[in-house]
Amino acid sequence: MALLDRPPTTLFVCVTCRAGRDDAQEPRPGAQLFESLRQGAEGLAVVPVECLSNCQRGCTAAVSAPGKWTYVIGQLDPEQHAADMLAFARLHREATDGLPAWRSRPEHVRKNTIARIPPLPVVAKEIA
Amino acid sequence: MALLDRPPTTLFVCVTCRAGRDDAQEPRPGAQLFESLRQGAEGLAVVPVECLSNCQRGCTAAVSAPGKWTYVIGQLDPEQHAADMLAFARLHREATDGLPAWRSRPEHVRKNTIARIPPLPVVAKEIA
Repeated sequence: MALLDRPPTTLFVCVTCRAGRDDAQEPRPGAQLFESLRQGAEGLAVVPVECLSNCQRGCTAAVSAPGKWTYVIGQLDPEQHAADMLAFARLHREATDGLPAWRSRPEHVRKNTIARIPPLPVVAKEIA
Repeated sequence: MALLDRPPTTLFVCVTCRAGRDDAQEPRPGAQLFESLRQGAEGLAVVPVECLSNCQRGCTAAVSAPGKWTYVIGQLDPEQHAADMLAFARLHREATDGLPAWRSRPEHVRKNTIARIPPLPVVAKEIA
């Protein structure tokens, strides 16, 4: 019940990313990153996506949750940076506003934040 | 009533952006972009933000709406690209999923999409 009451922090992962390479490597780096994140994702939802439009600086993942800031992180090497991305997602989950303290963020995340977007404003509902 | 039932499409604008310049130009390019967008924003909500973390490729705006994809657009010159950004926001508003047809998007938007993020998955609510 408690888990369902609190919608999960979601990690979106671009699974089609070739990480800037022209070769036909299979599985693609994006798919490898997805698999690495999924394996360590206890307490998080990991969702595959076809293209997060950060193709020049992939691989890419984004962390989001209702009412919180969304962060897009790039230059993620599936063999090197899965742990950093998972650590950041857990900091995001613990931060009420989705803004983990700068110094607490893994260095790769600090240096490769592609964009962040605020939560949508709450719209007052008209009562019949 | 109808307007309140449909939460507005929101344009977030980084108002602190210096567009990569070190000088102390005031008002800042980001604040100029915000003003340009606000003036043409009928039917849209334009919300100022301090930093969208796209500092290397500013000025920056993001378009978002409940249940739709979010797009972050960069390299926006306040004097040249406000109309393109507004046109894209209106296409986004009309697109049920927030994915305007590629060919319909203004060229600057096509060439300077920094990232896109899907809507959060719907979480089933447990009933008592």
